Amino acid sequence: MTILALAMAVFNAGAQVKEDFVTAPNAQTGKEYPKVNSERRVRVRINAPDAQSVKLDIGGATYDLHRNAEGYWIGDSAPQDEGFHYYQIIIDGAYVPDPSSLYYYGVSRWSSGIDVPAHDQDFYQLKNVPQGDVRELYYWSPTNNTMRHCYVYLPAEYDKNPNKRYPVLYLQHGGGESEHGWPQQGKTAQIMDNLLAEGKCVPFIIVMDNGSWRIERPQEPNPAGGRQAAPAQRQGGGMVLPSDWYQGFANTLIQDIIPMIDAKFRTIPDNAHRAMAGLSMGGMETKEIGLKYPEVFSSLGIFSGGEITPEEAAAAKGFKQNNKLIFVSYGSRELSGGRDIQATAESLKKAGYNAHTYVSPDTAHEWQSWRRALYNFAQLLFR
Amino acid sequence: MTILALAMAVFNAGAQVKEDFVTAPNAQTGKEYPKVNSERRVRVRINAPDAQSVKLDIGGATYDLHRNAEGYWIGDSAPQDEGFHYYQIIIDGAYVPDPSSLYYYGVSRWSSGIDVPAHDQDFYQLKNVPQGDVRELYYWSPTNNTMRHCYVYLPAEYDKNPNKRYPVLYLQHGGGESEHGWPQQGKTAQIMDNLLAEGKCVPFIIVMDNGSWRIERPQEPNPAGGRQAAPAQRQGGGMVLPSDWYQGFANTLIQDIIPMIDAKFRTIPDNAHRAMAGLSMGGMETKEIGLKYPEVFSSLGIFSGGEITPEEAAAAKGFKQNNKLIFVSYGSRELSGGRDIQATAESLKKAGYNAHTYVSPDTAHEWQSWRRALYNFAQLLFR
Repeated sequence: MTILALAMAVFNAGAQVKEDFVTAPNAQTGKEYPKVNSERRVRVRINAPDAQSVKLDIGGATYDLHRNAEGYWIGDSAPQDEGFHYYQIIIDGAYVPDPSSLYYYGVSRWSSGIDVPAHDQDFYQLKNVPQGDVRELYYWSPTNNTMRHCYVYLPAEYDKNPNKRYPVLYLQHGGGESEHGWPQQGKTAQIMDNLLAEGKCVPFIIVMDNGSWRIERPQEPNPAGGRQAAPAQRQGGGMVLPSDWYQGFANTLIQDIIPMIDAKFRTIPDNAHRAMAGLSMGGMETKEIGLKYPEVFSSLGIFSGGEITPEEAAAAKGFKQNNKLIFVSYGSRELSGGRDIQATAESLKKAGYNAHTYVSPDTAHEWQSWRRALYNFAQLLFR
Repeated sequence: MTILALAMAVFNAGAQVKEDFVTAPNAQTGKEYPKVNSERRVRVRINAPDAQSVKLDIGGATYDLHRNAEGYWIGDSAPQDEGFHYYQIIIDGAYVPDPSSLYYYGVSRWSSGIDVPAHDQDFYQLKNVPQGDVRELYYWSPTNNTMRHCYVYLPAEYDKNPNKRYPVLYLQHGGGESEHGWPQQGKTAQIMDNLLAEGKCVPFIIVMDNGSWRIERPQEPNPAGGRQAAPAQRQGGGMVLPSDWYQGFANTLIQDIIPMIDAKFRTIPDNAHRAMAGLSMGGMETKEIGLKYPEVFSSLGIFSGGEITPEEAAAAKGFKQNNKLIFVSYGSRELSGGRDIQATAESLKKAGYNAHTYVSPDTAHEWQSWRRALYNFAQLLFR
């Protein structure tokens, strides 16, 4: 346990907890737990009649549960940041998903997850506005000699305009995650449907594929548990991926995925109408591939995955004449190390680039930062 | 524990187990377990360092795991029937999903699942043939005053023939299941893509919606864990659903779902080109709604969910002149009570109906019976 986690656990043990818990939207139908309260504490409950110890593992800390009068193990976390968090239950040392929650792929496993209410959650709620589709595709990948799996968001108007063609954003997940991340905990369709309903962005297609390039075996045809590629290396602490990783995914993306999408959908198949973005490892992929292939992608979004400096932009062949947008975002809690993305963006602007930044208030390296990043990036794209 | 389960557990304890286990397709990427061997035994392994007792719960029986030399809990089931089975792990009395497996909605929960190899599994394998799409839709339901959620399978040729219109099958899950069942463990897209690639059926659209009519709250926008309606009453032992259940779902289907599908897709919107089918509770819904609304559905598939007798067909107003197909199927292990679906079908044929039956060899009230039922039913539809 880190010192921070220990401090949080001690704080929690002595805290007066506000008893206004409500069932989280991530509870399975018919289940009362997990719950969350107005202080943003998470409360879980589990039936484990013969267990000696049951704990909640969330946000980098563990919290002891206690047995209540009805015999359930129950307990609360310290207040969490706004937005989505992975969590798990530890029963006598076994790390397992909470049997009451819905499951989300992250941290290289299908995990429990919970949405802590956020002051700005309206932008990613499911609403009765025109609904785009999320399509699940399997396709043959000659580069990898296997079937691959992706999701494609199409705006609501796509089927109503059979002669109209659309720009495309290729949107990547982070390390230890998969193509399920953006459509599921990322809430891509809800964010886009709501933006379009308010006239805040232009309609475009979003392709959500698997950026963990080394596919070990054919994917299981399974909307809830589709095969992810080999778990990606974790992205903490400025880790650098091997260069063959980027090239492997670049080859898959450029040789297989883009031609498949351009053949199947009514795209505008040029670089002016093609963007790439991603979070964490997906942001690192976006930077590497975006700098190397400016004739493929003209607009780039890097969410919690580094920056592009004016020097890097200048050194990349063909980048200056092709690039239309560089967007960089972080959660505010990720910037304590002194990184100044605004200063980098100012330098880029002085060098003639259309550079934008966004800092998500009071969030860390988690999905609330990336939902907000997509919400802001989408409004700048293809204008 | 039932006497049968006890007998199986005792048999298993003394059995010589064949050591040719391989990782099941339902293992999460990077996980070695669950495994299955050529005797169709399931082997699970879990790390539970402080547990006193760990068990595997599958096929109506529980099996004690033991701690191996590396400290993992490990153990095998007795031989299982071919095909898909839900399972769970019991850690010191707590019923939880296996943290190594993919998850499937059934038995009113997101559950571990495993595919035991089947002699005929080729028909539902993912292959490099033209791939249809599965689309995930959210839509407004005026009848229920809420957003609802469904999946729609479109054959591979749909996008290539912008002026062609298609028949539609409305395909329902069983009690305690949800709209996730058919696209996921049902393997609907793989079954249809393979049939179409071999020219064994005509192309049609399949709508997979939620037949548990009482929606309690808006659905979570979540491909892996979308909201299911209130858990359905269980279907064992010839249980009868209340009549308002059927009418509630009939209203939703006829007033909301069919008009939405006919508006959104290129359907042939008449009863000659509209079918309904379902498994267990979904089969009971198909029978009730099919008999009551023959001007809406002309072809019916009832999988492990009862039969239509000549008397019931004769008593249903407008049924004789509209019906084009009655298909009834069961798993062979479900017919031990003396039910003779072939005799009923012969009586229907004598009365002038196009009646067909199918019995799935050596399977019970489980998904392998229903995969095979869809495979056979699809070849008869819309001919």
